[in-house]
Amino acid sequence: MNRIVIIGAVAAGLKSAAKIRREDPAAEIIVLEKGSLISYGACGMPFYVGGLIADISDFVKTTAGAVRNPEFFKQDKGVDVRIRTLVTAINRAAKTVAARNLDTGADTVFPYDKLVIATGASPVRPPLPGIELGGIQQFWHPDDAAAVRAGIDNGQIRQAVIIGAGLVGMEMAEAFTSRGVAVTVIEMQDQVFPAFLDTEAAAAVASYAQAAGITLRLGEKVERFDGDSTVKAVVTDKRVIPADVVILAIGVRPNTELATAAGLAIGPSGAIAVNEYLQTSDPDIYAGGDCAENTNIISGKKVFAPMGSTANKHGRVIGENIGGNRVAFRGVLNTVAVRLLEFHVGKTGLTEREAKALGYQYVTATAAAPDKPHYMPDSKQITVKLIVEAASRKVLGAQIFGKGDVSKRIDVMAAALTMGATIDDLFDIDLAYAPPYSSPIDNVAIAANVAMNKLQAK
Amino acid sequence: MNRIVIIGAVAAGLKSAAKIRREDPAAEIIVLEKGSLISYGACGMPFYVGGLIADISDFVKTTAGAVRNPEFFKQDKGVDVRIRTLVTAINRAAKTVAARNLDTGADTVFPYDKLVIATGASPVRPPLPGIELGGIQQFWHPDDAAAVRAGIDNGQIRQAVIIGAGLVGMEMAEAFTSRGVAVTVIEMQDQVFPAFLDTEAAAAVASYAQAAGITLRLGEKVERFDGDSTVKAVVTDKRVIPADVVILAIGVRPNTELATAAGLAIGPSGAIAVNEYLQTSDPDIYAGGDCAENTNIISGKKVFAPMGSTANKHGRVIGENIGGNRVAFRGVLNTVAVRLLEFHVGKTGLTEREAKALGYQYVTATAAAPDKPHYMPDSKQITVKLIVEAASRKVLGAQIFGKGDVSKRIDVMAAALTMGATIDDLFDIDLAYAPPYSSPIDNVAIAANVAMNKLQAK
Repeated sequence: MNRIVIIGAVAAGLKSAAKIRREDPAAEIIVLEKGSLISYGACGMPFYVGGLIADISDFVKTTAGAVRNPEFFKQDKGVDVRIRTLVTAINRAAKTVAARNLDTGADTVFPYDKLVIATGASPVRPPLPGIELGGIQQFWHPDDAAAVRAGIDNGQIRQAVIIGAGLVGMEMAEAFTSRGVAVTVIEMQDQVFPAFLDTEAAAAVASYAQAAGITLRLGEKVERFDGDSTVKAVVTDKRVIPADVVILAIGVRPNTELATAAGLAIGPSGAIAVNEYLQTSDPDIYAGGDCAENTNIISGKKVFAPMGSTANKHGRVIGENIGGNRVAFRGVLNTVAVRLLEFHVGKTGLTEREAKALGYQYVTATAAAPDKPHYMPDSKQITVKLIVEAASRKVLGAQIFGKGDVSKRIDVMAAALTMGATIDDLFDIDLAYAPPYSSPIDNVAIAANVAMNKLQAK
Repeated sequence: MNRIVIIGAVAAGLKSAAKIRREDPAAEIIVLEKGSLISYGACGMPFYVGGLIADISDFVKTTAGAVRNPEFFKQDKGVDVRIRTLVTAINRAAKTVAARNLDTGADTVFPYDKLVIATGASPVRPPLPGIELGGIQQFWHPDDAAAVRAGIDNGQIRQAVIIGAGLVGMEMAEAFTSRGVAVTVIEMQDQVFPAFLDTEAAAAVASYAQAAGITLRLGEKVERFDGDSTVKAVVTDKRVIPADVVILAIGVRPNTELATAAGLAIGPSGAIAVNEYLQTSDPDIYAGGDCAENTNIISGKKVFAPMGSTANKHGRVIGENIGGNRVAFRGVLNTVAVRLLEFHVGKTGLTEREAKALGYQYVTATAAAPDKPHYMPDSKQITVKLIVEAASRKVLGAQIFGKGDVSKRIDVMAAALTMGATIDDLFDIDLAYAPPYSSPIDNVAIAANVAMNKLQAK
């Protein structure tokens, strides 16, 4: 009987457990989780704060309404999930992990044949003066969301400062704005979404955000936090900004401490190095989810790409491989989609900045057009920017933004890029045409045409 | 100087004219159109009848609001469009076309170096008793839409009968229902959308349509129309259905008369045969748009696939080739998307029925799931059905239906199928994940997983 130990019970860990069970009905599967909650939908938390979602317990429910707790996984999947159980060490020679029960303090050693590390990532906390003040919050766990929402509901939070104009930061800006809380976003870089947008897309987002009442402070550096026991203001290199709450959203780091201590290789991105089968440098130990490194499909480079969708795929691939099959994970495109009130942004593949840094010879093509025929009353503009390798005509990346249906086109691009599409392939895609959804020449094809006109016919 | 003559000035004809102009600034380009309107957006007409669009003249305007009339094309593109000019014959030996001015009756001969046939398609009019009665309408030209809308606006149309449960028929059912007109759809086949849905998807549409108040009469045959000068009732093999208006929506046929008379080859689908460069059996004559035959990318079979999106692509490819480049058209997936009130349906590639008829060894995989996380308030269910070739794992076709975002997923499938994707490729696509748009395991990946579970890991 195969003994499987999994560290971490959010996305990758539990998905791999379920898939191992399907492939190997006899395996003993134990999942060790340091927290109290498992399998929660953390990505929905900004929408809970924003008031779209009434009940925070929805994040731990299945679509059918069952609560995803240890009993559920025991009964539904035959998987033994131990919460409040902190793994303290991995002993690769003995093939065991040591874990402490956080309630009783008891230590237990779990032997494994195969081990899965799915320890996730943690938000970065900058070591600035005043960081220990109350009201300075990361936004990573449902408890964080509950605290912020309670503060808005009871009127304590009337002005919020967000540090970092990335995904979490801008989603929280939407949430606060929806609730009537005055919000300022401070970003050290001189644009929003510095990790995944080129300047023109970022400028469009910034322009929309400011018109929607979100104050952006770009190219501005936080120096310290002022307050008594709780924060009262954020002091930057340019001004003092009053704050009832501060959200730290400057990024996350992979939780690699256990892996490092066990001597497993860490990759160039800082996450745990894995091969295409998601095995670490020890073939009996797999890693998946936010703690594991990814390969960008376009560049072939190692990247840190924490994303719930990727974590679920990792879980399935790990489950297949531990279950006795041999399945490779192709990698990621660092695809992103984000809504800011009524504005939508998507990106897949490389940005122009990345393409340039990697030495590609490329052209860009930009096309702004309605997302469906102009005569349809809900027709709205979107802009597509393509980054195209000149010689091969291969699409390296796409950024799409506007008030229209961005999400569809970025997913079409993701499909095309995963398959290695050229601009000629993009033009050829027989996209569905009907006026409620699209124009006869879809935005994707228009952008491809612009690129084809630049590079001439093949 | 190249003399180019183009027959037809709706989608393919004018698109090829514009592209030829871009590639060959010196060419003489003459477009001959028998009607009065050019370049109109016929696909929007049901939404005009349904009241979504206020002004029928929007269909002949550009996004910027300019009217697409002959003057516009003259000034903007340097293209000479002659309306109300009926081409009566093509003389391939002399390389001329003969055309009659429908206002003056004058005949003119136009010499050409290259000729483009873009004569479109025409609705089928069944030779049934009473077909000549007033109020029995095809729905193909803006004049048809104007007549129907006027009838609703002035209260003459209170009950409508639609013959044919295809795209036009069901879009008109939506339009009438939106305006409070009682509507019955009669379909000879025993399901809606018989041309592109398998039975389970068709049943879901039918169930929704009936709940929305649309009366469906499936497997029922129209025998005659009753009335005095105008139609009063439709008589089927089962009943008499009162009607103030009858919409004929039993399909369209390619307009091939000119091509046939000129001795050009007609393909197995009944449309004008063309090679991958869209040349007819006479290499100096191209054909594009609804009158030209297509190749299905999956099956390699010749198909008749009249669609505005395809017509525009044909126009561009013809323009490239006449302009001196060498560009092939890859073909179509017979992709379709259609909205019925709040229900959405999409299809790309082969149906199960087609796959079976073509002799494929296949499996199907069906997955019903929310289109975004269940905790988001606008989360709605959609169902994805895949048809997968068993040995190659290649996706042959997809049908998607439900109240959620179908249009996105069918376009992702179209991109994947155009690139020859397997179910393993579908799983690998790094789709954008964010709760306003999608779940961490998107419906596309869920369906791929179901298929992978059926076929085992690769």
